[in-house]
Amino acid sequence: MSPTAEFQDRLNAVAKDVDVLLDRLLGSDPVAEELGRPARLLEAMRYASLGAGKRFRPFLMVETAALFAVPRQHALMAGAALECVHCYSLVHDDLPAMDNDELRRGQPTVHKAFDDATAILAGDGLLTFAFDILARPETHPNPAVRIDLALALARAAGLGGMVGGQMLDLAAEGRFDGGARQRLGAAEVARLQAMKTGALLKFACRAGGLLGQATPAGREALERYGAAVGQAFQIADDLLDVEGDPALVGKQTGKDAGAGKATMVAILGPAGAKARLRELVGEAEAALAPFGAAAAVLVAAAKFVAERDT
Amino acid sequence: MSPTAEFQDRLNAVAKDVDVLLDRLLGSDPVAEELGRPARLLEAMRYASLGAGKRFRPFLMVETAALFAVPRQHALMAGAALECVHCYSLVHDDLPAMDNDELRRGQPTVHKAFDDATAILAGDGLLTFAFDILARPETHPNPAVRIDLALALARAAGLGGMVGGQMLDLAAEGRFDGGARQRLGAAEVARLQAMKTGALLKFACRAGGLLGQATPAGREALERYGAAVGQAFQIADDLLDVEGDPALVGKQTGKDAGAGKATMVAILGPAGAKARLRELVGEAEAALAPFGAAAAVLVAAAKFVAERDT
Repeated sequence: MSPTAEFQDRLNAVAKDVDVLLDRLLGSDPVAEELGRPARLLEAMRYASLGAGKRFRPFLMVETAALFAVPRQHALMAGAALECVHCYSLVHDDLPAMDNDELRRGQPTVHKAFDDATAILAGDGLLTFAFDILARPETHPNPAVRIDLALALARAAGLGGMVGGQMLDLAAEGRFDGGARQRLGAAEVARLQAMKTGALLKFACRAGGLLGQATPAGREALERYGAAVGQAFQIADDLLDVEGDPALVGKQTGKDAGAGKATMVAILGPAGAKARLRELVGEAEAALAPFGAAAAVLVAAAKFVAERDT
Repeated sequence: MSPTAEFQDRLNAVAKDVDVLLDRLLGSDPVAEELGRPARLLEAMRYASLGAGKRFRPFLMVETAALFAVPRQHALMAGAALECVHCYSLVHDDLPAMDNDELRRGQPTVHKAFDDATAILAGDGLLTFAFDILARPETHPNPAVRIDLALALARAAGLGGMVGGQMLDLAAEGRFDGGARQRLGAAEVARLQAMKTGALLKFACRAGGLLGQATPAGREALERYGAAVGQAFQIADDLLDVEGDPALVGKQTGKDAGAGKATMVAILGPAGAKARLRELVGEAEAALAPFGAAAAVLVAAAKFVAERDT
C-alpha cells in the first residue's frame, strides 16, 4: 500500500474509533448515566462533536503515541478529549457574537440547529468534559501522566493558546477599539496562527510523547513535527479559502479576502505560500527521521495536510 | 471572639489571599508571562475575577482543608481555580443570549464593560485556566491528588453539574420548545439547584478532603456538610430576590417572581423556606460534629449563609 493510501486508511480508522468512543462517553457510558444530563444539552453536545469531523487531531495523537507502543485505547481517550476542545471552539467561534457562521461541515451550526444559549452551554460543557475524560484512569494508569496531559491541554487551549489566538484574530479584523483593521506583519500572523490553530495540533503530538513517557529527545522531535504540521495546516486552510471549491470545503470560501484578513497567503501570495508548505513538509519529515520507517504514516500526514483540497 | 466574628475575619482573610493570588496568576506570575497573553483578553479575565467577590467557595475549601492540616497555600491555589470556574459561569450567564444582565456586584457585566465576543472568550479562558491552576505542583505535590481534584471539578462544573443546571434553569423559564414555562415540583427544583449552584459549593468541601487525603468517613462528613450548605445557599439567594434590598444585594431583585420562576421560596413560601434553612443549618452542624471545635468556623459559615442579607 502507498504511504498516502495507508495514511487515509489509518485516518479513517481513528475517525471511526473516536466516533464510537465519543458516542459512548456522551451516551450509554455508565459514568455519563450517573451524571443526570439534561437531554437538550446532551443532544447539542453530541450534534457538535459526533459524525462529520476528519479527526485529524486524534489521528496525530494516536499515531505519535504508537511510536512509543502506547495502547491505542489510551491514545483514543486523550484524542477524544482533544476533539471535545476542538469542537467546543468551533461552536463558540460560530456564534453570532463571534464569526456568525451558519454552516459548518455543510450542516447548520449548533446555534442555528438549536439556539444561542444552548450553543454557549454546549461549548462550555464540551470544554469541561475534555478534562473529565483526561482525568479518568482509562486514559492512562499513571496519574502523573494524566495531570501532565491536563496541564498541557489547558496551556494549548487557554489564553496563551487557542482562546488567545481567537482573540488576536478578532482584534486583527477590527472588532475592537473603534473598528480599525490591524495590518499584521508576517511574524504577527505567524504568532496568531500558532496560537489559534497551531497550539492544539502541537498538543496532539506532544500528548503522544506524554502518553508514551518519551525521552526528552523524543519529545523534542514530536514538538518540532507538531509545530511544522500546525503551520502547514493553517497555510493550507488559508489557501483553500482563496482557491478551494466551496462544495468540497463544506463552508463559504473567500471570507478572508472579503474581511481584508492578514493571512500567510495574503502576505506571501499563493505561489509563495505553496513554497512555504513544501518547506514545512520537509521540516516535519526531518523531525521524524530518528523514528525511521515507523513514522512513515506521520510523514504522509504532513504531506496530506499541505496538499489537501477539503 | 464570637464564632460569627471569627467567621467574618477568616472569610475576609481568604478573600484577600485569593485576590492576591489571582492577581499574581493572571498578572506578574512568571508562568503567565510565558503564555503570550493578548492584553484585552487578560484585562477582561481580570475584570471578571478580581476584586468584588465574597470568595465563599474558596473559604469553604481553605477551611475544610484546614481540618486536615493542609498547607494554606495549596488550598488557596485550588480555591483560586474554583473561583475561576465560578466567575466564568457568571460571565456567560450574564450574556444577552442567556440571562441578559447588565449589572453584577454593582458593576457593569463583562459584556457591557467590553463586548459579547470578549465576554465569551474571557469565560472560556477562565474555565480553561482553572484546570491549568489545578494541574500545577503548587496546588499539591502529589499528582494523584491533583488529578482527583481536576476530575471532581470537571464533574461539578459540567453537564451533570453547573452547566447542566443552567440548562435546566433556562428550560424551566420557557426558553426552548415554543416558550412554555415548566411548572417544576419541589424535587425538580431541588435537582436543578443542586446542579446549578450546589455542585460547586459541594466541590469546595469535597476538595478540602481530597487535598487532605481524608478517610472515607471524613470525606463523607464533608460531602454531607457541603450538600446542606449548597441547598441553604440557594434558598437564601431566592429569599433575597423576594425580600432583599437591591442596594445591599448589588443586583436587581424581584426577577424570579417576574419570570414566574419555580424556586423553593415560591414552593414553600417565605416562612416555609426559613424553616427549611434552619433544618439545613442543623444538618450542616451535625455533619461536622466528628471534627469538634475545629469545625466551629464552618458551622458559623452555614449559619451565615442561611441568614445573609447580601
